[in-house]
Amino acid sequence: MTPDREAARRLDAADPLAASREDFVLPDGVVYLDGNSLGALPARLPQRMGTVIAREWGEHLIRAWNDDGAAPGQTVVGDSTSVQIFNTLVAAARLRSGRSVLITDPEHFPTDRYLAASVGRMLGLEVLELPVSLLRGVLDERGADVAVVAYPAVDFRTGELWDIPGITAAAHDAGAVVVWDLCHAVGAVPLHVDADAVDFAVGCTYKYLSGGPGSPAFSYVAGRHQADFDPPLTGWNGHARPFEMGPEFVPASGIARARIGTPPVLSLLALDSALDVFEGISMEEVRAKSLSLGEFFLSCVDSQLAGLGFEVVTPREPARRGSQLTLRHRDAYPMMAALVERGVIGDVRPPDLLRFGFNGLYISHVDVYTAVSELREVAMSGAYRDPRFQVRRTVT
Amino acid sequence: MTPDREAARRLDAADPLAASREDFVLPDGVVYLDGNSLGALPARLPQRMGTVIAREWGEHLIRAWNDDGAAPGQTVVGDSTSVQIFNTLVAAARLRSGRSVLITDPEHFPTDRYLAASVGRMLGLEVLELPVSLLRGVLDERGADVAVVAYPAVDFRTGELWDIPGITAAAHDAGAVVVWDLCHAVGAVPLHVDADAVDFAVGCTYKYLSGGPGSPAFSYVAGRHQADFDPPLTGWNGHARPFEMGPEFVPASGIARARIGTPPVLSLLALDSALDVFEGISMEEVRAKSLSLGEFFLSCVDSQLAGLGFEVVTPREPARRGSQLTLRHRDAYPMMAALVERGVIGDVRPPDLLRFGFNGLYISHVDVYTAVSELREVAMSGAYRDPRFQVRRTVT
Repeated sequence: MTPDREAARRLDAADPLAASREDFVLPDGVVYLDGNSLGALPARLPQRMGTVIAREWGEHLIRAWNDDGAAPGQTVVGDSTSVQIFNTLVAAARLRSGRSVLITDPEHFPTDRYLAASVGRMLGLEVLELPVSLLRGVLDERGADVAVVAYPAVDFRTGELWDIPGITAAAHDAGAVVVWDLCHAVGAVPLHVDADAVDFAVGCTYKYLSGGPGSPAFSYVAGRHQADFDPPLTGWNGHARPFEMGPEFVPASGIARARIGTPPVLSLLALDSALDVFEGISMEEVRAKSLSLGEFFLSCVDSQLAGLGFEVVTPREPARRGSQLTLRHRDAYPMMAALVERGVIGDVRPPDLLRFGFNGLYISHVDVYTAVSELREVAMSGAYRDPRFQVRRTVT
Repeated sequence: MTPDREAARRLDAADPLAASREDFVLPDGVVYLDGNSLGALPARLPQRMGTVIAREWGEHLIRAWNDDGAAPGQTVVGDSTSVQIFNTLVAAARLRSGRSVLITDPEHFPTDRYLAASVGRMLGLEVLELPVSLLRGVLDERGADVAVVAYPAVDFRTGELWDIPGITAAAHDAGAVVVWDLCHAVGAVPLHVDADAVDFAVGCTYKYLSGGPGSPAFSYVAGRHQADFDPPLTGWNGHARPFEMGPEFVPASGIARARIGTPPVLSLLALDSALDVFEGISMEEVRAKSLSLGEFFLSCVDSQLAGLGFEVVTPREPARRGSQLTLRHRDAYPMMAALVERGVIGDVRPPDLLRFGFNGLYISHVDVYTAVSELREVAMSGAYRDPRFQVRRTVT
């Protein structure tokens, strides 16, 4: 197959998720490949939020609290990812209180690294930053010291998908617990945290779940750990009987003890509405579409960008990819700035990476073709050398 | 003055804030005296949010980040009050790291007490719960041990307004720092944290500021402490150069280092819109209206509820009141349930307190008159003895 516009059209014509694009608002003339940073706006969300605000807040006022129920299961939603990471890392370390080492990834998202360092300082733990490739060796040697192993499911720079069950099993063999950061995986990759024996996980909801800017994070606590889950953020909302307002913190049973303070209800409403988009769609379908977009992207890169100084950073094996492809180029920053001006939105990561995220719910193969063609144009024409693109502009 | 409906009408006719009521959505037939728990819905908020969501999220997508600026000054907004309390208590204690005692209020809001206990445990501090009346004696005796003094500006049960400058000065005399919880004061009482030499403060925005359910909390760090502010929640958003994604947490200079993770942007938008209501209104006007409503409430209670088993718990001196009046009654729970059914919404606190909050922006003297008259009816008629009111219903 020649990866041209016609091939893209054929692939789109056969795409079972093609109709999902209508569920999102996307500006005309824009190819939005930054859903790995901030998902697009679900089309029905603004009106639904307006209605719910008027009814729940305007009419029910404080009375709405009494109808609130706790979510069952092993996941709570609320607060920011940073807060969930801190709370979960401390609680995880407390489950292994005789041990002195917290292992995390030197390529982990910065907030994960900063919070691992903070938790290490507060609890007196040694924090080791180990690339995944060195993890097993260290677990063999020093495993008995290791309390917690904290890695991202998908590397935010390279888009590499790590081996969740394998790393979890290696940590367990050493007697440690794992904390997975699912930010770049949830909504993009089928996850089987129960089957994989994951202990704890955290993640955000504004990337592939399209929950909106700063939508609440989540944390997962495996059922077997809930009775011993002992978090530092003992807010009223995690209390067994929050409305009794007793003098001491008595943790709720089950996952409810992972709740912290008053949840950001309006942001939760937006998220709830955003998740409607997934109704009737399986994660396997989303994954298949995402891999198809990624394969097509790689074909386009190979055929159009050869000899222009780009290098594919993401593993080419489908099983080792999340839903993002990353290219390295020495002029990554001005190149992306020029690309954004042409309506193709990806982003950059220091020092020289261009990231392209493929949300299968609203990105088409034609979008992918357009993105690579425009990037070729930018590179061939030297348009990125324009002085106005030399200012370093970054987005999260 | 006889505190009757006619007197209420005259007071309302002379009220300079009477027009503000139009800025809020309030259901017909409801007297909403629970704004001390959850403020009413600002009328222009739903449409403004809809517009901003469509423009900022739907059109600007991730590009909106680049136009984001840091708020100047000494206050940041974000996360829940519980999270801000934890972060601030730890940072406050670290400023006095040679000292071993954290003092807080046994009548403090539960989440404050739970988090003080958690911080004490993590940092190895002794946590003393002292009523305000005993604070000075203990500071005289053990002041040199005291790291942090953490009190609420207004007691959430009784509505008593504490002496912020006096308590702050006493703590400073002992060499300690103070953390004030302003949840029940901000938007209701003029605050002068700089003039009062307050070190740190936290508070929520969904009570008298009407920011909506779970709207973000704030924290205040006095300028003189910012360079040494050393929080445990070292999220990416408090980094000096968050978009460089460097390996170590380098705190931003100034108040920005008190930021934590990705802020709940939709909830911030709602808050921003809610605060428009205060434009052109001084806190002194709001305070005058609140005190007038409180005085009138007390007159109505004295003239209508005498002999019915009610006791006024809140200090009668205006200078010692926040914007909430609390009555004690052995049948507080069924009494409030019956009152709510009649359209007068206050709330209850264990074991026997009825709370009535007066937001001067949307509560009138006639509302106050109606509330007390209905309460008299409920008490006199025995309506509250109906079995359906015996179920304990609480609201936050």
